[in-house]
Amino acid sequence: MDTKNADLAALRDALGERLVTEATIVNGYENDSSRAVFTGATLGLVLAETADDVSLALAWAHERGIPVSIRGAGTGLVGGAKAYDGGLIVSLERMNQIVSVSPDDRLAVVQPGVITAELDAAAHEHGLFFPPDPASARTSTVGGNIATNAGGLRCVAHGVTSDWVSALTVVLADGRILRTGALTRKNVVGYDLTRLFVGSEGTLGVIVEAAVRLESLPEGDPVTFWAEFDGLAEAGAAVTEIVNSPARPEVLELLDALTVQIIEDVFPSGMRIPAGALLVGQTVGSDAAKHAETILDISRRLGASAAQIAADDSLVEARRMSNPALSARGLKVSCDVGVPVSALAEVFTGIAAIAERHGIEVASVAHAGDGNLHCKVAAPDTPAGLAQADALIDDITRLALSLNGTITGEHGIGLVKHHELPWQLDEVALDVQRAIKRTLDPRDILTPGRAV
Amino acid sequence: MDTKNADLAALRDALGERLVTEATIVNGYENDSSRAVFTGATLGLVLAETADDVSLALAWAHERGIPVSIRGAGTGLVGGAKAYDGGLIVSLERMNQIVSVSPDDRLAVVQPGVITAELDAAAHEHGLFFPPDPASARTSTVGGNIATNAGGLRCVAHGVTSDWVSALTVVLADGRILRTGALTRKNVVGYDLTRLFVGSEGTLGVIVEAAVRLESLPEGDPVTFWAEFDGLAEAGAAVTEIVNSPARPEVLELLDALTVQIIEDVFPSGMRIPAGALLVGQTVGSDAAKHAETILDISRRLGASAAQIAADDSLVEARRMSNPALSARGLKVSCDVGVPVSALAEVFTGIAAIAERHGIEVASVAHAGDGNLHCKVAAPDTPAGLAQADALIDDITRLALSLNGTITGEHGIGLVKHHELPWQLDEVALDVQRAIKRTLDPRDILTPGRAV
Repeated sequence: MDTKNADLAALRDALGERLVTEATIVNGYENDSSRAVFTGATLGLVLAETADDVSLALAWAHERGIPVSIRGAGTGLVGGAKAYDGGLIVSLERMNQIVSVSPDDRLAVVQPGVITAELDAAAHEHGLFFPPDPASARTSTVGGNIATNAGGLRCVAHGVTSDWVSALTVVLADGRILRTGALTRKNVVGYDLTRLFVGSEGTLGVIVEAAVRLESLPEGDPVTFWAEFDGLAEAGAAVTEIVNSPARPEVLELLDALTVQIIEDVFPSGMRIPAGALLVGQTVGSDAAKHAETILDISRRLGASAAQIAADDSLVEARRMSNPALSARGLKVSCDVGVPVSALAEVFTGIAAIAERHGIEVASVAHAGDGNLHCKVAAPDTPAGLAQADALIDDITRLALSLNGTITGEHGIGLVKHHELPWQLDEVALDVQRAIKRTLDPRDILTPGRAV
Repeated sequence: MDTKNADLAALRDALGERLVTEATIVNGYENDSSRAVFTGATLGLVLAETADDVSLALAWAHERGIPVSIRGAGTGLVGGAKAYDGGLIVSLERMNQIVSVSPDDRLAVVQPGVITAELDAAAHEHGLFFPPDPASARTSTVGGNIATNAGGLRCVAHGVTSDWVSALTVVLADGRILRTGALTRKNVVGYDLTRLFVGSEGTLGVIVEAAVRLESLPEGDPVTFWAEFDGLAEAGAAVTEIVNSPARPEVLELLDALTVQIIEDVFPSGMRIPAGALLVGQTVGSDAAKHAETILDISRRLGASAAQIAADDSLVEARRMSNPALSARGLKVSCDVGVPVSALAEVFTGIAAIAERHGIEVASVAHAGDGNLHCKVAAPDTPAGLAQADALIDDITRLALSLNGTITGEHGIGLVKHHELPWQLDEVALDVQRAIKRTLDPRDILTPGRAV
């Protein structure tokens, strides 16, 4: 038995059948939902059931300098959970218990492998909900959402995942267990380590438990509204005015005509195809109808060709299917840029010019109320085709930065966007980021070479 | 000329008259508003006018290992801005410009020395406001509020200061200038360094510029309400129910009878003195009157002896004067604990028992909607008297911790609470906190020995 096998035997002794090495099983844990494809061989897969399992696995890897990839449901879009050749995979899917829900404190304690929509459903039983709502909420996990600081449809009203995390239990690279935060609404004891781990994309530690905040369900049913515009830029200008009105939508999404057409093709539901762009959203609470009318009035005044209250929420449901629909049609190369909301019209005008210059059709979907855009393009599966698509995405990314924007609003950096990092962060910022990484993971075993 | 004077000459060459050494001036910058009293002698005071001034001063101190205290308006309550013997003081009071207000993006860029209420007033000109609202808003600075992650009266509706900071410019210990965050609503590029610096109490860097988020002013005028209870515990139970109702107060404060009596004695305004406790708050927006009635109904049902809409906001204004009033009456020894809001009744019952056991009268004021309590006691200015008061405060702090609480909700750790840090943070947490401090300030010059 060589050293590697002897080492693995030590881990097997500790974890028993929670360490899996059968290739047919392990292969299913090597990739995420990005276009990064794993080639190589891992040492094995840990199907962790407890914080101690994670601690044992990391301490073992830390001692040996073995790279570790960490995954919830594998829904990530930037390669953050892709396995490492010669590495260990830690899966948190079995740590899927909702530990407690405390209605009076509007808090829930959950394990990382809980599906986000299941947490939301558990909160509903107490008249509460979990506001973070990525489009993947029915398949992605709370742990993954926290590790990437996921966004989603309701951010325009409720902020991002980090706004809803009160406390974390994290296994550090060397296996030690760290507790951050508090169960109180306010807490200023020491540095905000909770926020440091939220969005750290698996590079600083493994989240094994989280206390998250819940919100009271609004009164009544949501009101869904829609408006059609001749172009994205016109719709963008309307969005800028809407988010600064008293209307306060809970959802405010923008889809271009190509995206609507593809969603309707792949998941037919009878959607109208707009000439240029479809604005769709929801208002909630006792003033929901009044607020929806305010939004429709603004839309009409700023050029909407049609604008109406919808009979049901099917348009919002259709919006949630944009990513699988576009992917099914081969539009897999994506970006996730953000701009200040005042720059929405300008960024859409610029994207149209970039698409024309490259001669590639771009499908755009935006969490418009937050200024967060996802543009997707098709690319032939050849190096030249991918390079062409990447060049277009790079141009859109630089456009966003030129408008005081960001290279990623919610998907994270991961592997896929790692080359873009120095476009946004200067030398000092990169240096501080990496110094923190070295401090917490000196042997660089946790998701190495990604995020920072 | 000895080495120290030669060194100081180098700093004077760089800063000119922005370096002040006249004792009569410097003395005014040596203490904050806590009971920590500076004795000793500083090397001088830097009245910084630009980020470069701060950078020069820190680089100079870093090279020489000289401790630096940093201050805005000196309103801190935990000794965070107290000077160091042989140290340098950096004051940011001259960096007091509102650089820009961008209404469409609901963002303002400000220098750290801007008085918080002045930022709020500037936002009002655009139909916006700056939600963080510490009781000291008319005297404390935005930079100080960010450095301590200040709370205040409106947190129950709008969260704490950190929820409103988008981006920072920070001078690091060695003089390098770091830019964190982005001007977009969502941004997941690298670790959340903005949040790391918010609340770091001057121990990681000096904030020299901040982009802060603003919010649209609610419709109509606020509605002020009040309710009187026979005791704090009864009032606490009502608060737990109120914050989980649809009423959503913007302010929800609780004052015990002793506090009300002292405010009325020091700043007479005709306040009624309740038998046990006064609950006072405000609702805002188009449903303000309806929501206030909901709160009054809950209060009456849970035992309020009187509960009414107020004719004006004078009760909230009176509440803002509680700290100066109590201090004027010698109640200077304070705590700032927090508990989950479901534990409010229990913590008040426990505090009454502790007060009785110690034979010391306790005045309590609470940002009740957040479960954040400030208890203050008088102590004779003798070592024995102070020790007695400290022992009582320690008991209250341990009580809060036993209820899943925190040792500080908004004032910070600073110098005064430093001994309590290990009560809340375990060895791993302390180790991680201090490792981050060492990484960013390896020579330990920035506010050394405090906060972490």
